[in-house]
Amino acid sequence: MERPEAAERPTRFETHPSRYKHWKLAVSGETATLVMAVDGDHPHKPGYELKLNSYDLSVDIELADAIQRVRFEHPEVKALVITAELDRVFCSGANIYMLGLSTHSFKVNFCKFTNETRLYLEDASASSGLGSLAACKGTTAGGGYELALACDETMLVDDGNSAVSFPETPLLAVLPGTGGLTRLVDKRKVRRDRADVFCTTAEGIKGKRAKDWGLVDAVVSRSAWDKTVAERAKALAANQTVTRGPAFVLGPLEPKVTDKAITYSHVELTFDRATRTGNLVVRGPDVADDAAKLAGAPGVEAGGLAPTAGIEPWSLRAFRELDDALLRLRFDLPEIGMVTVRTTGAPGLVQASDEALAKATSGFAREVRLLQRRVLKRFDNTARSFYAVADAAGSNFEGVLLELALGADRFYMLLDGGKKIGVRTSVANAGFLTMATGLSRLEARFYGAPASMEQVLARGAKGTIPSEEAEQLGLATVAADDIDFEDELRIAVEERASLSPDALTGMEQSLRFVGPETLETKIFGRLSAWQNWIFTRANSTGEQGALTLYGQPERPQFQWKRT
Amino acid sequence: MERPEAAERPTRFETHPSRYKHWKLAVSGETATLVMAVDGDHPHKPGYELKLNSYDLSVDIELADAIQRVRFEHPEVKALVITAELDRVFCSGANIYMLGLSTHSFKVNFCKFTNETRLYLEDASASSGLGSLAACKGTTAGGGYELALACDETMLVDDGNSAVSFPETPLLAVLPGTGGLTRLVDKRKVRRDRADVFCTTAEGIKGKRAKDWGLVDAVVSRSAWDKTVAERAKALAANQTVTRGPAFVLGPLEPKVTDKAITYSHVELTFDRATRTGNLVVRGPDVADDAAKLAGAPGVEAGGLAPTAGIEPWSLRAFRELDDALLRLRFDLPEIGMVTVRTTGAPGLVQASDEALAKATSGFAREVRLLQRRVLKRFDNTARSFYAVADAAGSNFEGVLLELALGADRFYMLLDGGKKIGVRTSVANAGFLTMATGLSRLEARFYGAPASMEQVLARGAKGTIPSEEAEQLGLATVAADDIDFEDELRIAVEERASLSPDALTGMEQSLRFVGPETLETKIFGRLSAWQNWIFTRANSTGEQGALTLYGQPERPQFQWKRT
Repeated sequence: MERPEAAERPTRFETHPSRYKHWKLAVSGETATLVMAVDGDHPHKPGYELKLNSYDLSVDIELADAIQRVRFEHPEVKALVITAELDRVFCSGANIYMLGLSTHSFKVNFCKFTNETRLYLEDASASSGLGSLAACKGTTAGGGYELALACDETMLVDDGNSAVSFPETPLLAVLPGTGGLTRLVDKRKVRRDRADVFCTTAEGIKGKRAKDWGLVDAVVSRSAWDKTVAERAKALAANQTVTRGPAFVLGPLEPKVTDKAITYSHVELTFDRATRTGNLVVRGPDVADDAAKLAGAPGVEAGGLAPTAGIEPWSLRAFRELDDALLRLRFDLPEIGMVTVRTTGAPGLVQASDEALAKATSGFAREVRLLQRRVLKRFDNTARSFYAVADAAGSNFEGVLLELALGADRFYMLLDGGKKIGVRTSVANAGFLTMATGLSRLEARFYGAPASMEQVLARGAKGTIPSEEAEQLGLATVAADDIDFEDELRIAVEERASLSPDALTGMEQSLRFVGPETLETKIFGRLSAWQNWIFTRANSTGEQGALTLYGQPERPQFQWKRT
Repeated sequence: MERPEAAERPTRFETHPSRYKHWKLAVSGETATLVMAVDGDHPHKPGYELKLNSYDLSVDIELADAIQRVRFEHPEVKALVITAELDRVFCSGANIYMLGLSTHSFKVNFCKFTNETRLYLEDASASSGLGSLAACKGTTAGGGYELALACDETMLVDDGNSAVSFPETPLLAVLPGTGGLTRLVDKRKVRRDRADVFCTTAEGIKGKRAKDWGLVDAVVSRSAWDKTVAERAKALAANQTVTRGPAFVLGPLEPKVTDKAITYSHVELTFDRATRTGNLVVRGPDVADDAAKLAGAPGVEAGGLAPTAGIEPWSLRAFRELDDALLRLRFDLPEIGMVTVRTTGAPGLVQASDEALAKATSGFAREVRLLQRRVLKRFDNTARSFYAVADAAGSNFEGVLLELALGADRFYMLLDGGKKIGVRTSVANAGFLTMATGLSRLEARFYGAPASMEQVLARGAKGTIPSEEAEQLGLATVAADDIDFEDELRIAVEERASLSPDALTGMEQSLRFVGPETLETKIFGRLSAWQNWIFTRANSTGEQGALTLYGQPERPQFQWKRT
């Protein structure tokens, strides 16, 4: 059933408001307005038209970029209004023809990316003083309503016609899988039996009932619309207690992309299609970030495209590059299933950057830490096997880079006679960089054994922890001397690369996310796992499935067995 | 890819130790020993042989029966030792040929049932003073190790050969999906990187390393084996603080089964294959259970098969019947996707039974309440759409039966002029009957609005809540008068029965389990959802998949795309 990808050119996750095709970003005082105006003729891949403000990956890449830029480049903004240019349609959701044409692996990664973007919108509200308002002046369906649910407040126009709806189950035989089901009952606390009615009513619910059921926060007439949007945005802004800034312009990353490597200034992903393996290297800073750099970026004009090389702190630059590399790995290198993760750099510089970042009082520095946290979550949630490897004296699993080893499925360390290879902790390992579960990676590693975590942090405070001791403390999975190391690692990598990709994804999703579940993990665990299952079933994607036949005259034919 | 079921005769979930083919139950003082001795020639369905203590549904039905009987019939037992008759094999897990021959829907339901059984073993330990010890004197693989993980303690023989293992991912391209992955890291708190190594090492881990990694609690030599088992069982028994009893023998249910109905004394499930709908009716007691009945059952000989009609309390009998009906619905009526749920009986009798049960101090009464709780969890976790319907004066959604309406996806109530139709609360709705999430069904219904729940309980204490008020209080999804009711319900049922069964399962799994996640919900949500996805993927069940080709000379051929 797998269809070939429509195009094989690299996916580009970098963009800029000046290049947006589907959104318009306008900043006015404390309010930014993000207007959805999808250009139907510019889909991510040829083969479908983006009608009625339906979206695809290209639309969502711009949305992710816009949210990120408002956080960094427009610190004065405290309320983000998401609305649409069409008068009668807010957003009709993910484009169904796009879904019908996509491979299973693309669908799953597309949903994961859209889920991350919506979670980052909530993160901006929770941590960055950026409230959000979905101003839905028309039909708000499927993924469109899921976007609205990710905002702090949702307003629906009361015109006797516009409804919010989840037509996925009744019309397409799939789920509102971009957080929809979870946010409905867990975030908005819509009564579960009402949610059941709503999710099976294709035409949706409008007006007073939508408000009474808690589906939206307000229904507002057309005549009062603009005034109410402005009032609500103002009230949202007034509620914010966190301040950001100073402004920092996110310059382009522009990696060099070949058929063997994606290369950035501090990050490089190399890969070998024959063995289906890759190697991700993150290089530490050349000079530690200091207080001056983390106070903001003097001389960079907001809204400009000024190059930030030499100005951008390593702690930001390296993690933006890592983020981009992970997204390219997910979308463009689906067969690279096993990735070793290495780090390089001079000792002490990451620690110094982490320390400076933790001490810095600027909103900009907080944004950098929050970005690091999001990128590390993206790493946790990337469906590839990761083995961290410390096998050279220049290995640099220190502080925030140690998180990569803790987030990896395994950590291999070489025992060297000189004890030059080791790991170093910093303030970055002490709790701020939480996983989606709410646990730090050290807490997750030592789940149920907090004393072991404390022991690591206490020992780390005294200096480098060499490989042997790292193994004893429970940080290294395997520590081996140079007689055995290379063979052991090679065999482990080959074995991993030979196992079923699907079974590994399911296994890693269970082992990585030990401990408590949150709204976020429920979306990626419970909801996405069911959606992925449904995407493989004939009732949705089979030749006579509802998703396949959408828009065609034939009626879907279902297999009626319940599981 | 769906294969036809090998046989179409009704599945029989009732059994008795005297009829066990695969287990031997022996009780001696405070210890019961359950010896796995699978009879390879008596599989659940023809087509495969149960070698090396591998199991199928027939083996697990006996295990579930044995645990239930020890709880009710052998209250003196405080430690359950699960071991095997074979000298070098404890259990090699679910039979792989059986899995390879089974339909997707059977596999999913089989895994769900085995998961429930293992959770009930943990429930017996947590709530009923019945500790458990897995005494693994030989190879403990896959589902065999998952059974051991569900016990309080696990002993592995230290013979230089016997290992615990999860070969599912490396050999079969599926997951240890009977709670295995979840219990490894969340219950036993095995370090996640070690769990990763363990779950990809087909031969498993033995001896000291198994102990060091926390995979087992003790490794014991052959010579010290019997003595240590006895000691550990004694210590487990000594730790129990809850007492059960007096003994109550669980008599046969023996429903009448036709092609239109399954009929018990208090429960009836009728169904119509043409419309794929069913109707489940639970009848209240004829006479309320009283303290005498709930103190135990005088005159019933332990171990006998004495008929319990007239002696067995309604609160036990009706829920055992409901349990059996739900299992038959799951396994034997896969196409009956939409089930209405009705109740009948005279007002006040369920309340009186609930009250008597809550007040009774006997261990037997506690066991009855725990069984009700388990059966209602089985209801929550049954992948069918349930609409509760109160449409007649004799409708009886009262106390413990009201839980069925709260657990259903929707609740339809008829508005009658005489206000005879209504619901009645009891002590049973106040918190003991928790869902897998740990919330009561009223808490789940009013998630985030505890005042609404308190309002219902306060109003319920004053007497019947008629339909109109039930709707206002948030108990009824729909209340309609007799002009509209019948049409509205009929259309809702027809619509539901027309939707994709897969999408509905995924939707219900998200909406029903609002709120916190627990070990139990992680198993059914996160782990099972991924396993179900994997079961649909070509890498496991395709023609060249690893599960399909197991035991054959061909090597599986994998599709390498990661999702």
